[in-house]
Amino acid sequence: MAKKKGLIVQKYGGSSVKDAAHIKNVARRVVKKKKLGNNVVVVVSALGGTTDALVALAGQLTKNPRDREMDMLLATGEQVSIALLAMAIHDLGEEAVSFTGYQVGIQTDPSHTQARIMDIDTKKMYKALKVHGIVIVAGFQGITPDNEITTLGRGGSDLTAVALAAALKSDRCEIFTDVDGIFTTDPRIVKDARKIDSICYEEMLELASLGAKVMHSRSIEVADKYNVPLYVGNSKNYGKGTLITREDKGMEQVLVRGVALNENEAKITIVGVPDKPGVAARIFKTIAEAKINVDMIIQNKTTTKTTDISFTIPQTGLKKAVKVIKDVAKKIKASDVITDEKIAKISVVGVGMRSHSGVAYMLFDALAKAKINIDMISTSEIKISCVIDIAKGKSAVKVLHNVFGLAKKKKK
Amino acid sequence: MAKKKGLIVQKYGGSSVKDAAHIKNVARRVVKKKKLGNNVVVVVSALGGTTDALVALAGQLTKNPRDREMDMLLATGEQVSIALLAMAIHDLGEEAVSFTGYQVGIQTDPSHTQARIMDIDTKKMYKALKVHGIVIVAGFQGITPDNEITTLGRGGSDLTAVALAAALKSDRCEIFTDVDGIFTTDPRIVKDARKIDSICYEEMLELASLGAKVMHSRSIEVADKYNVPLYVGNSKNYGKGTLITREDKGMEQVLVRGVALNENEAKITIVGVPDKPGVAARIFKTIAEAKINVDMIIQNKTTTKTTDISFTIPQTGLKKAVKVIKDVAKKIKASDVITDEKIAKISVVGVGMRSHSGVAYMLFDALAKAKINIDMISTSEIKISCVIDIAKGKSAVKVLHNVFGLAKKKKK
Repeated sequence: MAKKKGLIVQKYGGSSVKDAAHIKNVARRVVKKKKLGNNVVVVVSALGGTTDALVALAGQLTKNPRDREMDMLLATGEQVSIALLAMAIHDLGEEAVSFTGYQVGIQTDPSHTQARIMDIDTKKMYKALKVHGIVIVAGFQGITPDNEITTLGRGGSDLTAVALAAALKSDRCEIFTDVDGIFTTDPRIVKDARKIDSICYEEMLELASLGAKVMHSRSIEVADKYNVPLYVGNSKNYGKGTLITREDKGMEQVLVRGVALNENEAKITIVGVPDKPGVAARIFKTIAEAKINVDMIIQNKTTTKTTDISFTIPQTGLKKAVKVIKDVAKKIKASDVITDEKIAKISVVGVGMRSHSGVAYMLFDALAKAKINIDMISTSEIKISCVIDIAKGKSAVKVLHNVFGLAKKKKK
Repeated sequence: MAKKKGLIVQKYGGSSVKDAAHIKNVARRVVKKKKLGNNVVVVVSALGGTTDALVALAGQLTKNPRDREMDMLLATGEQVSIALLAMAIHDLGEEAVSFTGYQVGIQTDPSHTQARIMDIDTKKMYKALKVHGIVIVAGFQGITPDNEITTLGRGGSDLTAVALAAALKSDRCEIFTDVDGIFTTDPRIVKDARKIDSICYEEMLELASLGAKVMHSRSIEVADKYNVPLYVGNSKNYGKGTLITREDKGMEQVLVRGVALNENEAKITIVGVPDKPGVAARIFKTIAEAKINVDMIIQNKTTTKTTDISFTIPQTGLKKAVKVIKDVAKKIKASDVITDEKIAKISVVGVGMRSHSGVAYMLFDALAKAKINIDMISTSEIKISCVIDIAKGKSAVKVLHNVFGLAKKKKK
């Protein structure tokens, strides 16, 4: 049945279903999609604000809620949404049926609050699509083989949608949110930021992990792995959004696809680390054990017998990290630990870098001309990131957005 | 394991878990029960107000939500409660685990919004009790063999508790609410109404169906069927509540156990009904098909060729009922349909009536002396009900409570 009709998976986030009026809007959109000749699977998040309210309630009862009970609690949010959306669709005179993660067989491992999807039973969905044409599935949640309710962590509903699209071999997965798509950079910083029509998974992955908050990396990785065309659009209009697919000759050839800014990291430097094999491993083993996410790591050996190691981590984890790192610094006989919260990480991303050299030069030159000092540099095949003074972050974005020709008018 | 330790099922209603402070109170009570050497199964309702809020939200989306989706929606309320109560118990340093109706295997038939419990799988609960000592179960909800989420209708959480107590062969089922127990009559009407220490299922059934709102009839019927001792007490104190059991020689012998008042009924009279066989059947078939609940039915044939048939129904259904009844009245060539909303039904209940005559006389005499006119009379083996003017309802309760010696001081 998948191929006679189109099969589309749509996902609507919390801000798109935050109240009755918004839910009705989503219902109309879903029905419209169906009437265009598609079967539609809709994944919804909890009503905007619900999850925060539940977390606050839990916080009034205990400082350390167990993960299992948090999952039990938070999974209710999406269950409310699916029932309400079904009602709104019925009210339009259309058929639809709602399912929880459990009912639709979204099997996960038992890692509460950050479970991984292991398997999806598509039989029930195909059957329900045949009868109803529209199936509504609770995002963010799954069930373990022992019938324990789990949740998928941040970006969980996107992940549900992409995983369903992959399992159902659907034509595409449409993620609706409150922005028009993926932009060349944050439009709040650069006025003439341009919406990107198409972008490849790799570029999107770099942008997602670099602070473009539209989609979470895990979902893009899964879309990439199963080659699910992802579409990101605005739930409030029918304008053209951004299509995320495999790299494609037809894709507009650009050197740089986008510029990202992350102002939420902090830098830690361990000064005077004895330059012996195994020391770096020891440091980062300790950090990993403390579950601190490290982003950039820079070590630059100078001529002395010691070296300095710098790395960035999320600001929220700084306090905890400093405690752990001071301990390990003492053990390895490093001379000091310095932290800097006033940093911004600026990154340019584009598959064009693979075949075109000179991007790094253009970037460094542009920043130099703007008198912006570079503190750390890190590169990948399709990305260059620099750590700079946080006070210069936004102006650096403007400079680079301009230098790489990403602005609206220049491109059209 | 059931018998070495005590096994108690407790149920806390929405008003007992309406916010964090109330949930903490319930947690302390449950832990106290456990520390007395019991395994405890706790059934909780949705946080007070939650269900109304969800129903209101649904009402904003559609006038006629489907029952299946209402169940999907409302079942979330209890799931929130069980997670929060588990957290509060953990915060006291005790073990506990929460389960939804599905997880604990509360199988129901597929009658959404008023499902009947078909089977309960006790294995998982026994196992969890062995590990945790406290098991928290979502009230009001179940699952069909097809994995559809159902709810049990009004009084559903009480029913869950009683059914679990029966299935687990627990020592007793304790229902905690915001009143101290079952009273001889409504203490808001009669100041010296007395709390009843023990009452039998049959009396409680009559009182429950007569408007004493503490417990719903279905739960009492199930408790009666499986001989589960039921205890009703106040979640805010440790005072002695009311124990509901089988009729027992040791039970205090009284003529009348309690007086109930129902001010929410309306009376409909079909005037001039042709006195032929089958006419009454035709009327009540129509009413049943329209799903109107009829309470008292009175037909008194006089000397003419026609008769009048009166019956009472809930006031809320009056509008709908009148429409249906006017239609049927026309068809059977009755002369008129009269309604009266200004009625009260007053009832006295007691197993003592079985062996003692004269209760009816005492009742009629007392009302006559108080100049209260009786409009309709209906009796069962252990109950006498009269319909009177609603303006006289409360004073009739006072008169009868006094005549049958139910007051506090007179009994002690």
